[in-house]
Amino acid sequence: MKILAIDTSAGPSSAAVLDGETLLGEFFLNTRQTHSQTLLTLVDGVLRCTQTELGEIGLFAVSAGPGSFTGVRIGVSCVKGLAFPRGTLCAGVSTLEAMAWNFYGIPGTVCAVMDARCGQVYNAVFASGEDGFCRLTEDRALSMEALAQECRAYPGPLYLVGDGALLCHQQENFQALGAKLPPQPARFQRAAGVAMAALRMQREGRAVPPERLMPVYLRLPQAERELRQRLAGK
Amino acid sequence: MKILAIDTSAGPSSAAVLDGETLLGEFFLNTRQTHSQTLLTLVDGVLRCTQTELGEIGLFAVSAGPGSFTGVRIGVSCVKGLAFPRGTLCAGVSTLEAMAWNFYGIPGTVCAVMDARCGQVYNAVFASGEDGFCRLTEDRALSMEALAQECRAYPGPLYLVGDGALLCHQQENFQALGAKLPPQPARFQRAAGVAMAALRMQREGRAVPPERLMPVYLRLPQAERELRQRLAGK
Repeated sequence: MKILAIDTSAGPSSAAVLDGETLLGEFFLNTRQTHSQTLLTLVDGVLRCTQTELGEIGLFAVSAGPGSFTGVRIGVSCVKGLAFPRGTLCAGVSTLEAMAWNFYGIPGTVCAVMDARCGQVYNAVFASGEDGFCRLTEDRALSMEALAQECRAYPGPLYLVGDGALLCHQQENFQALGAKLPPQPARFQRAAGVAMAALRMQREGRAVPPERLMPVYLRLPQAERELRQRLAGK
Repeated sequence: MKILAIDTSAGPSSAAVLDGETLLGEFFLNTRQTHSQTLLTLVDGVLRCTQTELGEIGLFAVSAGPGSFTGVRIGVSCVKGLAFPRGTLCAGVSTLEAMAWNFYGIPGTVCAVMDARCGQVYNAVFASGEDGFCRLTEDRALSMEALAQECRAYPGPLYLVGDGALLCHQQENFQALGAKLPPQPARFQRAAGVAMAALRMQREGRAVPPERLMPVYLRLPQAERELRQRLAGK
């Protein structure tokens, strides 16, 4: 079975095709262009170059959050559109879990962090071992201090990944833990990781029809938060 | 300074653009198509999508060997052709060193291995630490047994990368060492690793003009070996 996976959950965008457990192709971009300028070019390019027809895709995968509100909506909408004509199954992957897949087989603790502003990071912690990894926490928003405090309990080495990794790495609390910053290709969410996480979801029966694929936000969008505040103040 | 890097040293092919230390884009393919079918499409695609003109490229990088004789020649010839019009500097990167860059910042010993047939593997060993890594051996061809014996002296964890990684991982000698097999995106040579290795070479003054860029073979091509044997037998 072939999987088409995309990621637009932060600044970079990427698209990948997985055939069974083999990565046939991955196109990754990290420029200042918007996802609407790059995403479909990447999807079209990776399908053409891997000689894959849309009809061959058995599962569409997307990082469904946490992440940029607009980015996640673009990714989820694109996948819904591609999957809808044939009612193909979809997998909405945790962005944080997709990053952790970059560390499959590398022993240690993987702390996936994304800048959530307001002094917080979206994060989740994974125990990585020889045979894969297991999730130690849910996806959640925490202060960097609280996260570092929690990470003291996990066995090293501690790897920081995601667009919040550099931010955490500069904090004294994480420095004291000897937290490590992996190289760029392994530090950020990429469609290859989304595809691998989706394959596991599909095997566990957690894929859904396109109409049930939804973004997963850990916080309400800023506009809604402000609206609720205004309404509460009235 | 922007770097355009390509890799065609084994089955997969890839092209990447690095701007300073930032990876702007990487297109990676691992299909049964030949490099002559895919390489220029990938180069054209990654340049277009990163909005990079050839004239902006300050360094052309290529994995110059070890690797498939034909693959390495295709990569080196392509880069020579692109660099020649402006006399742009080139970096011929060790394929084994390019793979090790996938592990920058991850502590352990990285053993990069490529299947050299005849019971041997092309290999080189690197000590990876928080601040990068250093080379422990030259690129060479060894039997898997001799390599495993040598690896006993290096501190763990021991990571096997390259298209010979799975072959070594299945050997008892490497099993006894607890050797680890990283996930596919980090296991194989990719243009992003070629670009990072080339940046270091350029900083160390080891870039060369296009006419001095050459493939690096650890063994003579099979045809030449057979010719020499025939001539010696006469």
